[in-house]
Amino acid sequence: MEEEFFRFLARRVPRQGFPGTGPGDDAAWWQAAGRWVVSTDTVAQGTDFLLPPATGWQVGYKALAVNLSDLAAMGAVPQLALVNLMLPRRKALKLAQEVQQGIWHLAQRTAVQVVGGDLTTWEGPLAVSVTVLGRLPPGQKPWLRQGAQVGDRLLVSGPLGGSILGRHLHPPIRIQAALALRRVAQVHAAIDISDSLTLDLWRLCQASGVGAEVELARVPVHPDAHLLAQRHPEQGSPLDHALYDGEDFELLVALAPEDARRVLQLRPGGVQWHDIGQVQRASQLEAVRSDGTRVPLQVRGYEH
Amino acid sequence: MEEEFFRFLARRVPRQGFPGTGPGDDAAWWQAAGRWVVSTDTVAQGTDFLLPPATGWQVGYKALAVNLSDLAAMGAVPQLALVNLMLPRRKALKLAQEVQQGIWHLAQRTAVQVVGGDLTTWEGPLAVSVTVLGRLPPGQKPWLRQGAQVGDRLLVSGPLGGSILGRHLHPPIRIQAALALRRVAQVHAAIDISDSLTLDLWRLCQASGVGAEVELARVPVHPDAHLLAQRHPEQGSPLDHALYDGEDFELLVALAPEDARRVLQLRPGGVQWHDIGQVQRASQLEAVRSDGTRVPLQVRGYEH
Repeated sequence: MEEEFFRFLARRVPRQGFPGTGPGDDAAWWQAAGRWVVSTDTVAQGTDFLLPPATGWQVGYKALAVNLSDLAAMGAVPQLALVNLMLPRRKALKLAQEVQQGIWHLAQRTAVQVVGGDLTTWEGPLAVSVTVLGRLPPGQKPWLRQGAQVGDRLLVSGPLGGSILGRHLHPPIRIQAALALRRVAQVHAAIDISDSLTLDLWRLCQASGVGAEVELARVPVHPDAHLLAQRHPEQGSPLDHALYDGEDFELLVALAPEDARRVLQLRPGGVQWHDIGQVQRASQLEAVRSDGTRVPLQVRGYEH
Repeated sequence: MEEEFFRFLARRVPRQGFPGTGPGDDAAWWQAAGRWVVSTDTVAQGTDFLLPPATGWQVGYKALAVNLSDLAAMGAVPQLALVNLMLPRRKALKLAQEVQQGIWHLAQRTAVQVVGGDLTTWEGPLAVSVTVLGRLPPGQKPWLRQGAQVGDRLLVSGPLGGSILGRHLHPPIRIQAALALRRVAQVHAAIDISDSLTLDLWRLCQASGVGAEVELARVPVHPDAHLLAQRHPEQGSPLDHALYDGEDFELLVALAPEDARRVLQLRPGGVQWHDIGQVQRASQLEAVRSDGTRVPLQVRGYEH
C-alpha cells in the first residue's frame, strides 16, 4: 500500500523548482537562510471532522489550511509541508489519494511544496498531521503572542461564529492578508483564532502581560452565527457564537492606533479588518456594551 | 487538558539556548543557514507498538528514535523536533506526560530541542507523529538513496533481525556513527533499515539504478534473530530474520572499496560496521552462498 501510494505521489507531485529532494527519500533537504518558522497540527476524525459528511478531499484541505493559519499568525511565508496519514485499513489507498488531492489543491494555490511524509494503516480512524515550514521576509521578525502594548487596537481579519455549519472544513487562508499587513503596519502581537475569539484573545493577553476590552457592538458576527442562533436559540445568541465558537481561523492582531487606522482604510490583502477593542493594563478581559457599561468578558472556547 | 499539558511542558522543557520560541506560540522560529533537512514519521498503537506491554515512555522514545534514524541516514545533525499526540480520552493527560518524558529523555541525549507540537484527544488509539529538523555539516551534501556506484561495498552499522523481541521499542541511535562516518569516508548512498535489509537495499538500488549482491555468510545476525528462530522454527532461520524483519534501524551505506576498508578498520562512531556485499550493474538483488553459488535474493519486508 505504501509503495503504491508513493508511486501515486511520484506521478502527481508538482515540482515547482524545489531545490531539495522530494518524497521518496528518508528526508527532504533545502538550502536555508534567514529566519524560518515551523508549525504542526493534526485534524482527527470524530474531533475535527466527521467522515462522512466530510470528504477525504476536504479533510486534506483543512489539514493544510489550519497549519497555514499558524504561519499567517507568525507573518511568515509558507514554503514546505510534510504530511502524516493515519488511515483506517478499509479503502486506505483511495482515502489517502483523496486527502492528498485536497492538500495539493491548497498547496498549489499557496505555492507550498509537499516534500515528504509518512503513512500508517491501522485499526483506528483517519487522522492527518501536517507540518509546515515557512520563512520570514528578509530582515523581519516573527509575530508572537507576546508584545501587545497598552493602548494597542485589536483587529480581526473577518467575521466570526457558526463555523460548524461548514466553514470549519474550509478555513480562510490569511497568508496574503498577513504579508500585506506587514507592509503597511507594525504588528505588536498576533494569534490565529482557532479555539474562540475570547480564548485566543486571552492567550495573547496572557503572553503579553496585559488585558483587553472588547466593544461587543464592533465584533463582526458571521451570517452563519445568525443562522445557527435562529436554528438553536438555546445555544446562545449570534454574538455568543462569535465570541465562543472555535475554528474561525481568522487573525487577531494588536497594533498601535495610528497603524490600526491605516489598516482599516487600506484593507491590506483585500481583507476587511475589524477593530474590536483595545489592549488595557488590567490583566483581564472586559466587555463594553453599546450603552457604555462594562462587564467581565467570559473566556470560553474549544478545549482540546 | 491542552492548557494543563502546556503548563506541564512549560515547566519541563529544557531550554538549551535555543534562539527561537518554544511551545506555546503558534509556531517556532529559528535562524537558519546552510542546508537543512526535515523528516516526519508516526508510530501508531496496534501497528508499531502494543500498549501494554509497551509503556508511554517507550512509545515516546521510539517515536523520536525512528525520526532520528531518518536524519542519520541523510548524514544530518538533528536540531529541532515537533510532536503531534493523538490520545485516547481515557487517562489522556497521564499518557501524554509519559510519552513526552520518553521523547525528552532521548532529545536531551541527542541535543534536540522540542520546539512545538499539538495534541488531540479522541476515540481512537494512541499515535505519535514526530517531525525532526536537522542541519548538514557546513559544505556537506545530504546522503540520498541514489548515488550508489557499481563496485561500491555495502556496509551496515549493526546486527539485524528479531527486533520484535523488544529492540523495536528501543532503536539504536546512529547519529554519531553517521557523523563520524562522514569524517573518514565519502558515502555514495545511504538508507536506514526500517522495513527490512532486503526491502531497503532494494529501494537504495532502485533509486541508484543498480543492483547488488549480498554475501549471506557476512550478513550480521542479531542474537535476537537466533532466539526467535529457536522459539519459532516455522518462521524461518536466523538469517531469514536478518534479511526480512523490520525495525532494525541500522544504517545501510554504499561507498568505494578503499573507503569501506578504512571504515572497517577505524570503526567510526565506535560502531562495528559490517561489509555484506557489493553494488553491481544488473538491476537485481543476488545472494551469494558460502559455497559461491548465486541465487536471486528474495525482497520482502514490512509493508505499511
